[in-house]
Amino acid sequence: MHSPDLTSVGIVAPQTARFDQPITLRSGATLASYELVYETYGQLNADKSNAVLVCHALSGNHHVAGYYSDQDKRPGWWDNMIGPGKPIDTEHFCVIGLNNLGGCHGSTGPSSIDPASGKPYGASFPVVTVDDWVETQARLADQLGIQQFAAIVGGSLGGMQVLQWSITYPQRLRHALVIAAAPKLTAQNIAFNDVARQAILTDPDFHGGNFYEHGVIPKRGLRLARMLGHITYLSDDVMGSKFGRLLRSGAFQYSYDVEFEIESYLRYQGDKFSESFDANTYLLMTKALDYFDPTHHQEDKSLSLALKPASAKFLVIAFTTDWRFAPDRSREIVKALLDNERDVAYAEITSSHGHDAFLMLEPHYHELVRAYMQRVAQEGGR
Amino acid sequence: MHSPDLTSVGIVAPQTARFDQPITLRSGATLASYELVYETYGQLNADKSNAVLVCHALSGNHHVAGYYSDQDKRPGWWDNMIGPGKPIDTEHFCVIGLNNLGGCHGSTGPSSIDPASGKPYGASFPVVTVDDWVETQARLADQLGIQQFAAIVGGSLGGMQVLQWSITYPQRLRHALVIAAAPKLTAQNIAFNDVARQAILTDPDFHGGNFYEHGVIPKRGLRLARMLGHITYLSDDVMGSKFGRLLRSGAFQYSYDVEFEIESYLRYQGDKFSESFDANTYLLMTKALDYFDPTHHQEDKSLSLALKPASAKFLVIAFTTDWRFAPDRSREIVKALLDNERDVAYAEITSSHGHDAFLMLEPHYHELVRAYMQRVAQEGGR
Repeated sequence: MHSPDLTSVGIVAPQTARFDQPITLRSGATLASYELVYETYGQLNADKSNAVLVCHALSGNHHVAGYYSDQDKRPGWWDNMIGPGKPIDTEHFCVIGLNNLGGCHGSTGPSSIDPASGKPYGASFPVVTVDDWVETQARLADQLGIQQFAAIVGGSLGGMQVLQWSITYPQRLRHALVIAAAPKLTAQNIAFNDVARQAILTDPDFHGGNFYEHGVIPKRGLRLARMLGHITYLSDDVMGSKFGRLLRSGAFQYSYDVEFEIESYLRYQGDKFSESFDANTYLLMTKALDYFDPTHHQEDKSLSLALKPASAKFLVIAFTTDWRFAPDRSREIVKALLDNERDVAYAEITSSHGHDAFLMLEPHYHELVRAYMQRVAQEGGR
Repeated sequence: MHSPDLTSVGIVAPQTARFDQPITLRSGATLASYELVYETYGQLNADKSNAVLVCHALSGNHHVAGYYSDQDKRPGWWDNMIGPGKPIDTEHFCVIGLNNLGGCHGSTGPSSIDPASGKPYGASFPVVTVDDWVETQARLADQLGIQQFAAIVGGSLGGMQVLQWSITYPQRLRHALVIAAAPKLTAQNIAFNDVARQAILTDPDFHGGNFYEHGVIPKRGLRLARMLGHITYLSDDVMGSKFGRLLRSGAFQYSYDVEFEIESYLRYQGDKFSESFDANTYLLMTKALDYFDPTHHQEDKSLSLALKPASAKFLVIAFTTDWRFAPDRSREIVKALLDNERDVAYAEITSSHGHDAFLMLEPHYHELVRAYMQRVAQEGGR
């Protein structure tokens, strides 16, 4: 028996919320009912004013912190950030993580059984947008009796959900923590997503999205998508210092087998991911990224105008070597908020870890979130 | 009949050089014989001192300038740079373009018939390196009676060949024009290449490299490789200004069909390329990139030491928005040359076109090459 980690939320268990009120999505498609799987860490206080919602990114899920058993070796994906005494302190806050609609970790998604057909949804599962996620998250909050979150927090695609919350439901969050995000994708961002999607869509094992019925998974396509994604999550710097031109065997092999350490690493990441993640969910998540644009319905595409309804206080964080969503993109958000005279703190964290830095234990970053969340705890509910 | 373009080299025809002296490659493999296809533009002078060799990049070939017929709509790939009165002026120089060994445009490569088996080489074609290319190019020069080039010129992977020439055969070139190149790939560069290779290698139609016998081509893999490559050739800037978030239909479709203009562009590029380029050659070219490292055999990986033998005069050119081989990479070359007190001119050209800028008619770039090559023409042979 090892000594207990006092900064861990400990053993946790997912819960399932069921929604029988139909939802009409942005695409026009309707889901008659759906389930969302979620976890909570820390106690919700009597007036339910201390809830913090964590929105996940492309491949994330509801298992944000803690372990599923004593034998479980890997904690939730943001365990370094959330727990007793951690930056988002579960002694003060009730933290809620959920798996978004369309996910593949328990919430209703393409791999779920469609009650209408008794088969997996597959290709018939509708495309879901960030707006749709905010709507479903708001319904989850309703079910939990949470009228207003102390804070909503997210990195990358998670940060986009935070932004959308601040626009759609300004009164339902006091603080918005938007980390390593962007107000919308660039053509280059979309291009990378489309190559990943094409890898999946053209994999013969994809079967138009209905691969479940064929007893196969489009492993090759999903593996390529993940390898490519990984390149964009890491900085050139960190790849250079971790792998550089190191050879696995010390000498050139003059073959197409693994030769450089970076190849070995990427292929391993791709293999692992392709066996555990749903290809339809991957497609859906990348489309949600592409579609996100709070200015989409405006003539003049003004982010300042789009953020006008937002009334939360903001903490916006970017990382110096993040080239997927570079600091410039965060500054666009900050500028639009300042145009509206909103309360916004902005930090550009020096890190070599690229986009992935938002998941890492970067001391300055964690201290900043800690200090910010302490202030949130002190100020209490409105 | 249209009026003749006086700055075009006009109608050209490829020639084939045959080599029956076996060549042992860096990998240890031997080719008993091989052919190289090449073109020449302009007249070789009496003492054969005015030859300029153009080394091609990943998907390039020997058709550098001019047209194959009156009906031919597209000239050679560097036609804007080479011709009478153009920056590399065929009134002064005899310009030679060749298809490298391993290519798929006429020189011996994986799709050629192996005389030993009577079938295409396919997977049995050896991996070829930049050193090997320099060796075969030197043999071509021997056959043409060219002892010393006035200049050797190349962009990207072509620039790496120029660098290697300056090290292997310092006396055989007076000037080295190294454009949009790098002294070796970074881990990130290798990573992009490996994703492209994995796309091809895992395509079921690749058949371990012997797809010719199966009457198929690994179109899906090659298409993905090209789409990905294209992203790295273009800058984020130029993608933004050319495509931005423009939608093909003006509204979101909520499907996985083409939606954004950038997707349409990339898929078109991928489709076109995958029908015309050989997948084995693509693999081979990317490996040549990965392997290139003039410091590979040294303990201390010093580029200055590696470039010590070089005696040519250098023009090194980089483009501001090139993130594949950023200006920093060219500066490494310049610094190593200066460490050896070599004659080197360096220019960083402001361009929005990313890595592809080396192929474009960028006025400052072209004027610089023109001025440099005029000086080369005036100084004549040694």
